[in-house]
Amino acid sequence: MDHAAASLLQVFVIFAAAQAGGWLAHRVRLPDVVGQIVAGCVVGPSLLGWVTPHAPLEMLSEIGVVLLLFAVGLETRLDDVKRIGGSAFAVGVIGVIVPFAAGAVWAHSLEPNWPRSLFVAAAFVATSAGITAAVLKEMGVLRRIESRVILGAAVIDDILAMLLLGVVVAIQAGGPLRIGQLAVVAVEAVGFVLVVGWLGTWMMRRGARWLDGARNPMTPLMVVLALCLGLAWVATAFGLAAIIGAFLAGMIASETRQRVQLQEQMQPLLALLTPFFFVLTGAKVELATLGTREALWWLLVATLLALVTKLAGGWLGALRLGPRSALIVGVGMIPRGEVGIVVAALGLAAGVFGNTLYAVIIAMSLLTSIIAPPFLGLLMKPRSGAAPAPGSG
Amino acid sequence: MDHAAASLLQVFVIFAAAQAGGWLAHRVRLPDVVGQIVAGCVVGPSLLGWVTPHAPLEMLSEIGVVLLLFAVGLETRLDDVKRIGGSAFAVGVIGVIVPFAAGAVWAHSLEPNWPRSLFVAAAFVATSAGITAAVLKEMGVLRRIESRVILGAAVIDDILAMLLLGVVVAIQAGGPLRIGQLAVVAVEAVGFVLVVGWLGTWMMRRGARWLDGARNPMTPLMVVLALCLGLAWVATAFGLAAIIGAFLAGMIASETRQRVQLQEQMQPLLALLTPFFFVLTGAKVELATLGTREALWWLLVATLLALVTKLAGGWLGALRLGPRSALIVGVGMIPRGEVGIVVAALGLAAGVFGNTLYAVIIAMSLLTSIIAPPFLGLLMKPRSGAAPAPGSG
Repeated sequence: MDHAAASLLQVFVIFAAAQAGGWLAHRVRLPDVVGQIVAGCVVGPSLLGWVTPHAPLEMLSEIGVVLLLFAVGLETRLDDVKRIGGSAFAVGVIGVIVPFAAGAVWAHSLEPNWPRSLFVAAAFVATSAGITAAVLKEMGVLRRIESRVILGAAVIDDILAMLLLGVVVAIQAGGPLRIGQLAVVAVEAVGFVLVVGWLGTWMMRRGARWLDGARNPMTPLMVVLALCLGLAWVATAFGLAAIIGAFLAGMIASETRQRVQLQEQMQPLLALLTPFFFVLTGAKVELATLGTREALWWLLVATLLALVTKLAGGWLGALRLGPRSALIVGVGMIPRGEVGIVVAALGLAAGVFGNTLYAVIIAMSLLTSIIAPPFLGLLMKPRSGAAPAPGSG
Repeated sequence: MDHAAASLLQVFVIFAAAQAGGWLAHRVRLPDVVGQIVAGCVVGPSLLGWVTPHAPLEMLSEIGVVLLLFAVGLETRLDDVKRIGGSAFAVGVIGVIVPFAAGAVWAHSLEPNWPRSLFVAAAFVATSAGITAAVLKEMGVLRRIESRVILGAAVIDDILAMLLLGVVVAIQAGGPLRIGQLAVVAVEAVGFVLVVGWLGTWMMRRGARWLDGARNPMTPLMVVLALCLGLAWVATAFGLAAIIGAFLAGMIASETRQRVQLQEQMQPLLALLTPFFFVLTGAKVELATLGTREALWWLLVATLLALVTKLAGGWLGALRLGPRSALIVGVGMIPRGEVGIVVAALGLAAGVFGNTLYAVIIAMSLLTSIIAPPFLGLLMKPRSGAAPAPGSG
């Protein structure tokens, strides 16, 4: 009973902190999610220590971000994605190559050790779709072309990051680099996205009518939530992030007639569960390890590098949309997040990184997630009457 | 990553099993929750073994039942409770005394050991408000007088059960029974319920207007959810079940002008999260330990005793409502659940119970929860146009 009570207290603290942080951020005209991440820093182990990330909270956080990307997918039609496919592909590819190359050179300059340097570089690669998606959703601009390019590119980006991680882990482990094996992984991942996206959409278009006669207004939601959780798991089985599966599930669900109703029903779910993702993201910053001059210097360089290279890559890839839109796409691709944190954790476990480099990479991932949203907010003027954000108090 | 993937798979299995179980139950005219509990037995460790209860899933289950009782509270006005206070008190008190006495005598007949017998008896006492509330909510009869008596009595019942548990733990530990200390605990618990219920309602009636101007349609929900999580935790700090705090929070929130909107916004939350509570309840039945003739005999007697004594206690207490209503109240009080399971777990940990008695008490708690809902469904004819259930596929 005491354990359950302690958990309930943490749930309450996280939820309340997210509301307070979101409200304060709104007061100073920052996106709510920035306030929630900072609130996480404050209540987390580094400062107040009221919240310690542990498995049950991680589960809530995971479900929160899965639902968030599902809701984003729900506002994305496959036909829209097809239209921006070329730009998204260019942004995804260039936006991976530039940060990876720059990260490798920087890490090599710290300590000439290619396997380790490539590992560090892998942490620079993957955009966190969750943060950007939340900001775009909060501003009600998900249907703008830049938003769709960013989200499409984030999917491609995630596939490439997963492949790169496979390569650097193999190199670091000293094993032979099996090109054939990697090709299989790549084909599986791309195949998963294409097959699920196209086939699911096609099936939903033909089969969605049986949802219309449901005896219960919640039935369509239950069906698509089951699809969301199922595809989130299948995505992990293909080595992709769970959120990719959730995003695809949302895209499939957007073909039903209940689309608008589903979008409304998702709001309370996002309001309850996404704060766990953002607050826990913030709570993972270990401020103490960053207390040395060397660590701060590394962090400054790594963050600038992460900002500039992703911005440049995204900008180059999206240039055909015009310079301002290209800038928006570049900024939208900046946030790293859970993937950078996963790479850092793998590197620490494999003994590749010391504690400082680990803390620097985590802090870099989070700083990019805190820095980018305000600029994205400035660049994207909100439409009047835009739908307000989930999680905003 | 593998850990997260495995957890996601379990989340998916639980959710999908709940939908399938609910759908099947509906087909054979049983309440959906019965289908969800049975689905839990099937996917749990005893049969398929697809789902193993662990901390993250318990957290989802806990949040699910907390939200469920919050939603039930949201449909309960304080003024209604006052009107049925006398009956609820009688049902609560008589419904505790009768099963406790009968349970003690039965346990004593198995093995003459009063401390142990009283411990067993404590497991017969507490009604699980969650199961009954879900059935009543599913049928759309929460506003009927019998429903309100049941829910009011469940609160009183929980307070008494908590006190009894304090007494039997003290007796079993061989320590002196400090009447003064128990009186303090009792006063705290009763005081918590009264102060929070009355004061919270009063404050909400006066202060709810500031919610009207919220910039975001989700703001009232966020505020009352924070209240719900906060009071759920405070209730545990007073030694009560978290769901008592959540119920009170819902009752307070029912005083806002956004009551109907909040009830609608709760539906998706209940649809996603309550299945975790019901499926995990079912998954905890250890069928293997019940394989002996002795165990089955004990289980039969214990279950009959639990059924008859609670039915009689509730019926006696509610007799002033007329015999049919008294019968409904009696049946509504039958389900035991999490509290019986907690008592059994305490008894196992303290070495009072062997494995068989432990399994019998758990199974008895669950059997009462499976047996009562169909009868409750039969006795309460659904109103036409009743609101459908959360979690029904």
